[in-house]
Amino acid sequence: MAHRPIITLTTDFGLNDHFVGTMKGVILAIIPEAEVVDICHSVQAFDILDGALAVNQSYHYFPAGTVHLVVVDPGVGTARRPILASSQEYNFVAPDNGVLSLMYAREARLQVRHITAEHYFLQPVSNTFHGRDIFAPVAAYLAKGVDQAKFGEVISDYVRFNAPKPKAIDAGTLRGVVLRADRFGNLITNFTPEDVPALFAAHPPAFKILVGKREVTSIRTSYADGGVGELFAILGSMGYLEIAANRTAAAQLVGSGKGTEVQIILQGAIAAGNGG
Amino acid sequence: MAHRPIITLTTDFGLNDHFVGTMKGVILAIIPEAEVVDICHSVQAFDILDGALAVNQSYHYFPAGTVHLVVVDPGVGTARRPILASSQEYNFVAPDNGVLSLMYAREARLQVRHITAEHYFLQPVSNTFHGRDIFAPVAAYLAKGVDQAKFGEVISDYVRFNAPKPKAIDAGTLRGVVLRADRFGNLITNFTPEDVPALFAAHPPAFKILVGKREVTSIRTSYADGGVGELFAILGSMGYLEIAANRTAAAQLVGSGKGTEVQIILQGAIAAGNGG
Amino acid sequence: MAHRPIITLTTDFGLNDHFVGTMKGVILAIIPEAEVVDICHSVQAFDILDGALAVNQSYHYFPAGTVHLVVVDPGVGTARRPILASSQEYNFVAPDNGVLSLMYAREARLQVRHITAEHYFLQPVSNTFHGRDIFAPVAAYLAKGVDQAKFGEVISDYVRFNAPKPKAIDAGTLRGVVLRADRFGNLITNFTPEDVPALFAAHPPAFKILVGKREVTSIRTSYADGGVGELFAILGSMGYLEIAANRTAAAQLVGSGKGTEVQIILQGAIAAGNGG
Repeated sequence: MAHRPIITLTTDFGLNDHFVGTMKGVILAIIPEAEVVDICHSVQAFDILDGALAVNQSYHYFPAGTVHLVVVDPGVGTARRPILASSQEYNFVAPDNGVLSLMYAREARLQVRHITAEHYFLQPVSNTFHGRDIFAPVAAYLAKGVDQAKFGEVISDYVRFNAPKPKAIDAGTLRGVVLRADRFGNLITNFTPEDVPALFAAHPPAFKILVGKREVTSIRTSYADGGVGELFAILGSMGYLEIAANRTAAAQLVGSGKGTEVQIILQGAIAAGNGG
Repeated sequence: MAHRPIITLTTDFGLNDHFVGTMKGVILAIIPEAEVVDICHSVQAFDILDGALAVNQSYHYFPAGTVHLVVVDPGVGTARRPILASSQEYNFVAPDNGVLSLMYAREARLQVRHITAEHYFLQPVSNTFHGRDIFAPVAAYLAKGVDQAKFGEVISDYVRFNAPKPKAIDAGTLRGVVLRADRFGNLITNFTPEDVPALFAAHPPAFKILVGKREVTSIRTSYADGGVGELFAILGSMGYLEIAANRTAAAQLVGSGKGTEVQIILQGAIAAGNGG
Repeated sequence: MAHRPIITLTTDFGLNDHFVGTMKGVILAIIPEAEVVDICHSVQAFDILDGALAVNQSYHYFPAGTVHLVVVDPGVGTARRPILASSQEYNFVAPDNGVLSLMYAREARLQVRHITAEHYFLQPVSNTFHGRDIFAPVAAYLAKGVDQAKFGEVISDYVRFNAPKPKAIDAGTLRGVVLRADRFGNLITNFTPEDVPALFAAHPPAFKILVGKREVTSIRTSYADGGVGELFAILGSMGYLEIAANRTAAAQLVGSGKGTEVQIILQGAIAAGNGG
């Protein structure tokens, strides 16, 4: 049985305004049988990396053929290009500002087009809401089956950046950063198990994690394993090391959030990436 | 191909409670094949004008036949009437308190009915949640194809009001107001290009916009054109003049929001609507 | 006409992260024709009773056959069991921590299973996001028609608790509590009409309700009946006595919220449940 085309939305529009509802109207007017699914509208305002993280955490769970519409677009109305990016399984419609960078890094076969076919846009095109006037209608026509080549030419100079990676600062010390605090106050760092494998070994060495003015010396495998008021490290569902606390917001205990420096100091061990 | 009936929701119920989910349950129990779409649930609590603005910004983007359910209803449980308003393309179910006023002003052919057919209501009808007990089931039966005439008689004395319009206070000065601050902190004023055409002319005269304790003297065509920390005016996607800043919340820079007075002073020009 | 299977979501995940969107992706990848409906994602973080209240207020409004997915799960990754609970009309997928307790109390015929069939889980199963890895896929396969018996054995020792009930503290005094403040600032208490029938009689006795430092002596039948700045009692749509104010947040007037003690003092009457 053929299912309805699925279009997801990831934006920094929040839910306080009519913006998201209006985009859904535009989509449904073009393809009323589409299933429009919210991924997240609380990407930090103007924060392209935060948008890239949200997309990267979720897009690959959707069925093949899903159209992912991503609008984090501080450059709306300037020369930055609207693009259509296609991996083997998914299509993405977004501004060309790097918001798809983490997806690019994980997909082997990619094709990116500069969207120039203005007859698919909502006219007149505003200078301040391309989500409504360009991205939503293009996603809708794409979901409706319009051939990708009709939207514009393939380009190779699309914007991409690397997510911030932890750096070794001496033989046993790695420096990273808090990418974001989640709804529960867990501090999501940019350390992955590959960055610091010793920490996730069967018998990890003694370690200290410095975050804000706090020192974390334990690692847990579930949130509920933490003691009352204890800050601990845990491998979170996003694939990153988190600083967390049991039924408590670690962000509040630490008194910090996004952008805070995090240092991991391994005793008697060589941190990965440090000439080891 | 016939698509599923679409019902949109615009309310001041927020998303902290079960209210919106419960309304969706009521609708789907009556018409499980409906597509229920959120426009916005963050209308300011009890604020009928704010609700009218949200509806007016979005309803006309949806496909013809859409049923728009609007519940901003501080008078719930009193004598205010539930109504069914129909334009050529859309149906609206709402309390008769003026929340549809801006839609009335834009639609040429309108029919408004007082909903009295209690057998379509969820029984017993509470005094505090007509969204669940009256508006949701009526919208659902309407989407299901029940004839409009079955819900009640046509009325002509339905409640409507005018949105606040800018006023000329002397030959070169217009006084308006901030209607709302959006998610990005842009201050949406009630000035349209019709109110102050000189400002949007090819060669606008010198001007000053006074808002809070700040003075705005530039106009931009995209948010990203603004300098660091600069407050500027811009024609926003809602059709109103906005006070904005590049990647920064203008509301914070100005230190004000909804209800703040805004003055536009044009030099060497005659403001529209001022006897010119 | 057969309608699409409906799956509802009630969680404490909030809407600031990708969590809810990711769960929708997992569901749609298994059953793309499902209709996924949000009930509420703003259950207080880690608060099982608050989750139980949200589910109980809404689940029974949905059409028979709906699968209700409930994830308020501070014990994620520990030994607490995932369960599948079925009433005559609905299926529920949730952690076995009591979050379904209020539903259990209202349904006559119940069957609860311990979900153990790991081949329905998303592999590898994380320790921190069973909403994505266990609950969402189980709900999806259930909606797809997989027989309940395939998910695990029937159990009878599932976790349940009673909602906090008001207590009589002397002949005319009952003590209850504020369960939550809603979006409008109404204070939802745990008093039902059964707890204090005299208050809802045609001719109620004189009474005082003490909440925070305020005294409430009037009862209204609609919010708009309250005078300016007046705090009053009202029977709310959730079936509980609320402390409210007309177009104003009672929570702010009282200066308190969830967990605040509420005393009802009836004059010349015997409070229900007090040996009367």
